[in-house]
Amino acid sequence: MNPSTSALLTDLYQLTMVQAYLDQEMEEEAVFEFFVRRLPPNRQFFIAAGLEQVLVFLSDLHITSEELTWLEQTGRFSSRLLRYLETLRFTGDVDAMPEGTLFFPNEPILRVVAPMPLAQLVETRIMNLLNFQTMIASKAARSVLVAGGKPIIDFGLRRAHGAEAGLLAARASYLAGFAGTATVLAGMQYGIPIYGTMAHSFVQAHKDETAAFEHFAHAQPHNVTLLIDTYDTEAAAHRVVALAPALKRKRISVKGVRLDSGDLADHARKVRRILDEGGLQQAEILASGNLDEYRLQTLVATGAPIDSFAVGTAMTTSSDAPSLDCAYKLQEYAGRPCRKRSEGKATWPGRKQVYRRYTDDRHLDHDVVTTLTDQQPGAPLLQPVMKAGLRLAPSPPLQEIRHQVHSQFAQLPDQLRRLEAGAPYEVRISQALRTLAERVDQCL
Amino acid sequence: MNPSTSALLTDLYQLTMVQAYLDQEMEEEAVFEFFVRRLPPNRQFFIAAGLEQVLVFLSDLHITSEELTWLEQTGRFSSRLLRYLETLRFTGDVDAMPEGTLFFPNEPILRVVAPMPLAQLVETRIMNLLNFQTMIASKAARSVLVAGGKPIIDFGLRRAHGAEAGLLAARASYLAGFAGTATVLAGMQYGIPIYGTMAHSFVQAHKDETAAFEHFAHAQPHNVTLLIDTYDTEAAAHRVVALAPALKRKRISVKGVRLDSGDLADHARKVRRILDEGGLQQAEILASGNLDEYRLQTLVATGAPIDSFAVGTAMTTSSDAPSLDCAYKLQEYAGRPCRKRSEGKATWPGRKQVYRRYTDDRHLDHDVVTTLTDQQPGAPLLQPVMKAGLRLAPSPPLQEIRHQVHSQFAQLPDQLRRLEAGAPYEVRISQALRTLAERVDQCL
Repeated sequence: MNPSTSALLTDLYQLTMVQAYLDQEMEEEAVFEFFVRRLPPNRQFFIAAGLEQVLVFLSDLHITSEELTWLEQTGRFSSRLLRYLETLRFTGDVDAMPEGTLFFPNEPILRVVAPMPLAQLVETRIMNLLNFQTMIASKAARSVLVAGGKPIIDFGLRRAHGAEAGLLAARASYLAGFAGTATVLAGMQYGIPIYGTMAHSFVQAHKDETAAFEHFAHAQPHNVTLLIDTYDTEAAAHRVVALAPALKRKRISVKGVRLDSGDLADHARKVRRILDEGGLQQAEILASGNLDEYRLQTLVATGAPIDSFAVGTAMTTSSDAPSLDCAYKLQEYAGRPCRKRSEGKATWPGRKQVYRRYTDDRHLDHDVVTTLTDQQPGAPLLQPVMKAGLRLAPSPPLQEIRHQVHSQFAQLPDQLRRLEAGAPYEVRISQALRTLAERVDQCL
Repeated sequence: MNPSTSALLTDLYQLTMVQAYLDQEMEEEAVFEFFVRRLPPNRQFFIAAGLEQVLVFLSDLHITSEELTWLEQTGRFSSRLLRYLETLRFTGDVDAMPEGTLFFPNEPILRVVAPMPLAQLVETRIMNLLNFQTMIASKAARSVLVAGGKPIIDFGLRRAHGAEAGLLAARASYLAGFAGTATVLAGMQYGIPIYGTMAHSFVQAHKDETAAFEHFAHAQPHNVTLLIDTYDTEAAAHRVVALAPALKRKRISVKGVRLDSGDLADHARKVRRILDEGGLQQAEILASGNLDEYRLQTLVATGAPIDSFAVGTAMTTSSDAPSLDCAYKLQEYAGRPCRKRSEGKATWPGRKQVYRRYTDDRHLDHDVVTTLTDQQPGAPLLQPVMKAGLRLAPSPPLQEIRHQVHSQFAQLPDQLRRLEAGAPYEVRISQALRTLAERVDQCL
């Protein structure tokens, strides 16, 4: 069973509410929007990601006979609900910001318009998909922004939260500007470049470190990146230098070495010297081991001679902010705009559009959130992507999305490129939206 | 494609190393152990979880022809490796602590003994599975320990890191003592009790809050838990009281109400009074909304009249410690014990057993980690679970594991039951293991 495609990967209350809507024949058009309420402490912007998986989910939405049988056997659900689920298909419309779009709190990045039971039922998985990839892309972007153009590889699968998290973190971090991933399946599934070196166990399994390096070089003659910190980093660097001439005679060159523990800057300097003095000036240094954007920034700022980085756990779990305060909220039902007014969780009502305005030198200046019918200057960010359950176009290639993200980084004002949060980017709520909100409040 | 069963859900270096091992005919027996290096700041113990998924993964290990074709097309791999993968099956032995066992840093909870290429290849997914469920069970246990017996429900799917994370978090938290989950698929797949109420959107979609409550009650007459914080919590409680007699005439009783925002203790007191004065003494109060073990402890300690809790994001992401510092390390190759000596990451060599010793009144006293051949007093915690690729027995039912966890909670010394970490539980390294480590060091 593949949990990622099951219609039962949802909260029980979704089924319960669908049953209630069907009972009351409340199947008129509902409008839900997904947005993030606020920035985590260490973020200045978000990168929209996960839309592709949402559209695949909606396109494939169905219930299997096995699932239907199980639901029936629980005795919890009406035959009306079971009949509804039996022919379940997503027939709604979706508008969204394209993947890779930078966005800010309270800006909807996805709108679902569908009959109420359907729009409700898909809430849980839509949130599950958009929360995760958006969170990861937004985290990974921080490393990209401080790495000064040096390649960063995703090494996070082992501590990702399960299979799908590992796979989608590879996708989201690549989209945000990582150079690739160690996860083989992400290479197969998404065409992401895959990278790898060797493990400590490979060195340990040999009686002699030099023998381990030699064997590895012969097995991967075009990709000889040797892990040198299993016992003594500098001693191992000397071994690499000593081994290099023998490898060269077999036309194998040492592509690089990997440091995975200790003071990475200090080791990098010492190892660089040993490699240079040993005639391996072209061999690159890859650093890994509990890296995050702060350590990357320090290593880059202090000029440590490291050519590329691997980032694992911190990125793949978004360790300092492992969730977003996001919501998928009802904005309109049967033509009537509505809003939630719970304490601390109030929302803006109705169908919305976000306009982005730029400075004269093409930097982001501010955004305006307004009603769908209110025209504003600037570039509208939400676009139609699905009509009556059918996708309007395939998603752009991942490489193209990645390129779009890169272009937007160039448009970021300086203060938004920093790791430390400064003055927040301005997101204006239009007069049209404020007026609508007041009108909705008065109705109740 | 189901990522959770793909043999390519692994790091590239695993394939690269397997290729090197095959080239060198290094297919002798390797021993790897999985352990956690240290406790996160806010943990005092771990609960072993995920073994069932590891054993399913090992039992099913194979490569599909589609995967094989893709690997071949990359041009990265030798035909020897491809032939090896074509007939890939897991043929090794596994010893492990049963799921639900409490454990501490540096104690192996799983040992794999298999030919080197095989034992290496499975590393990534074994870590991915054990890290996640162990982390979640260990986090969820903290809420269980402070809830004073009040039921806690997992509401975390929407912010879990993908599909598998949501499903396995439901499993791991149930195992640790949660009463159930909102995730329907976890009910179907693992037999976990499922719970649900209603969403704000259901209230919003109605012009009138009372109508929403009434419709919901008719749709779910045996499970009427009404969400009352959409607009004004106390006003909604009065509406519930006013509606109750009409429902009662239709033999529908209000099972409870749910609070999801604001000062939960304050709302709970006011709502309790309104319900009691309105004749709904039997209606229970469920509280949700950004709860974690600290808020639970405060709510319980201050006597807030809340009958049950729903915990979502904090538990499902293990928000304060979203990864464990865990490792799957080579302990022995071809009969030769080995250890890693990287700075800050040194490990104890060889095959190990963990013995647990109890005080006279059956509380945990201390553990001893020793070599497999060294007999020690106390209960040995690792047991054989797979021989030559075959499971020795099915896993115990989840309810039984949950019961075992509950029994161990009763054996916890008082200081380990607290949320704040105190003196760490004692884990002794035996003389036999120290002697072995010295011997290994001398060999190199």
